[in-house]
Amino acid sequence: MVVATERVRRPGDFSVPRAPRQDVSCLFCGGREAETPPELLAYRDSPAAPPNAPGWRVRVVPNKFPALRVEGALERRGQGLYDLMTGVGADEVLVESPDHHAKLADLAPAAVADVVRAFRDRLVEFKRDPRLRAALLFKRHAADAAGRLGHPHAQLLATPIVPREVFEELDHARAYYDYRERCLFCDILRQELEERTRLVVESEHVLALAPFAARYPFETWLFPRRHAAGFEHAGEAEQRDLAGVLRAVLRRLDRAIGNPSFTLVVHSAPFREGESPSYHWHVEITPVLPQAGPAWSGGLPLNAVPPEDAARFLRDTPE
Amino acid sequence: MVVATERVRRPGDFSVPRAPRQDVSCLFCGGREAETPPELLAYRDSPAAPPNAPGWRVRVVPNKFPALRVEGALERRGQGLYDLMTGVGADEVLVESPDHHAKLADLAPAAVADVVRAFRDRLVEFKRDPRLRAALLFKRHAADAAGRLGHPHAQLLATPIVPREVFEELDHARAYYDYRERCLFCDILRQELEERTRLVVESEHVLALAPFAARYPFETWLFPRRHAAGFEHAGEAEQRDLAGVLRAVLRRLDRAIGNPSFTLVVHSAPFREGESPSYHWHVEITPVLPQAGPAWSGGLPLNAVPPEDAARFLRDTPE
Repeated sequence: MVVATERVRRPGDFSVPRAPRQDVSCLFCGGREAETPPELLAYRDSPAAPPNAPGWRVRVVPNKFPALRVEGALERRGQGLYDLMTGVGADEVLVESPDHHAKLADLAPAAVADVVRAFRDRLVEFKRDPRLRAALLFKRHAADAAGRLGHPHAQLLATPIVPREVFEELDHARAYYDYRERCLFCDILRQELEERTRLVVESEHVLALAPFAARYPFETWLFPRRHAAGFEHAGEAEQRDLAGVLRAVLRRLDRAIGNPSFTLVVHSAPFREGESPSYHWHVEITPVLPQAGPAWSGGLPLNAVPPEDAARFLRDTPE
Repeated sequence: MVVATERVRRPGDFSVPRAPRQDVSCLFCGGREAETPPELLAYRDSPAAPPNAPGWRVRVVPNKFPALRVEGALERRGQGLYDLMTGVGADEVLVESPDHHAKLADLAPAAVADVVRAFRDRLVEFKRDPRLRAALLFKRHAADAAGRLGHPHAQLLATPIVPREVFEELDHARAYYDYRERCLFCDILRQELEERTRLVVESEHVLALAPFAARYPFETWLFPRRHAAGFEHAGEAEQRDLAGVLRAVLRRLDRAIGNPSFTLVVHSAPFREGESPSYHWHVEITPVLPQAGPAWSGGLPLNAVPPEDAARFLRDTPE
């Protein structure tokens, strides 16, 4: 990455004005459960409460217009040069709250913990299907999204192949391990805890940091201190800590740069690599700031905010 | 890629309303040459005309706030785990026309040919610097950009390393070549000319096609029929044909989906691979359509418009 220090922007340069709250009801709102496909998971205060009815805190439903479908056998065939595969897989929506306006950063700690637990519960479920090889767990918070897209939700995809970017990250980590016989990410955590300039939030089990040579301004990664390749290995204490650190980071980003749009991705090892000594699950949060750089740079991102500055600014911002 | 045919959108679904034309003058406009750093290249009708004065058709100037700088020696050092390198390189702006409102699709054929020629002339110049290894030639057309960013321009970066995405594409093509002893892209062109379902525009030297398993709706790639790894090898006839096909594609996209934002990237081999038998230069045009898919999918893009439909629609659209 190129940190373009000569055109460093101050964090305030990225601040986005807040849109006025609108009175909206969508399919994901509490009370409209009958309009979605039947739920796959829901946490309710009362265990006796009926499914697909109000009273849930977090709810996972199939995507109404899925890109991938769980039915059918996995088939592969060629067409000349090209490879085709049937679109088997899962495509689900994790609704983070029944309240249309309750974005993740504003939820109570226990509600963020529910979201983290739902990510993990669905991942464990996906791993049971022998046709599937990887889960993509992510959310896009669009500061100005309208309608259904504005209701806080995450997307859960599970695929019969390992997507290219997931494979490449794994491959890179494996090359480091083959050379040093140590996990790249464990080594990063050790160095970051020594240098301390890029740390954002520390807790007992989870650390948040601005990655060295960050690709985007205010990019923040969350790591468990304990090595584990698959997110399914996150224990209760780690999940709770992850939720706490995630909430702290999102609230600081909100205050520091004014409710930015962001992408959140859970990076977890593909299913067959869940025990890998070279990979280490983590969460990447990438603010989407339109002013932040050129349109494309071949994977060589140009970032005008050095991660040390972003980390210091976020450390100094109250939650 | 997943072509999600069950939620296929009609091309009209992506149409974006046109913004009203505003009376804007910016540093890139004709008449304000003294306000930019001195020009690195300009084409003028009169060869005797002075530099940095009006009368140019296409003009290249250094970026006023460069991410990379041409001065200085290339140094590499380590910091614990991490690698650092001085930010040597070129960062230039190619101004496509003195007219603030003349977007590429609306320029006359000869003016588009000037833009193509300027891309190539700068590439040839970059290759002379032994510190540099790759050039990133690209433009982002933002349909709603106001002010300076609205003036049609491209960005030219040259870097002392081969950026990750460039390296990966090269690596993939090399793996195919090692197995088959044929260029992957030559094979793609042969199959596309047989199947014909994904062809968009054909000319004597250049083809435009919707790539098999396109990542984004209306993604269009332009290839020279003749094998060459580096864009610097494009002869005069190929450059002229590339300009003609590029103009045709942009005009059809404009009519078909209403002046979309897009990214255009010249994919050319890194400088040391300019003669490679396995790589084949080309141009990728990717419309940026916010409604087009999920925020992230680990490099497994989900595209609701099959490339065969996009290609047919573009073929049927007049220029």
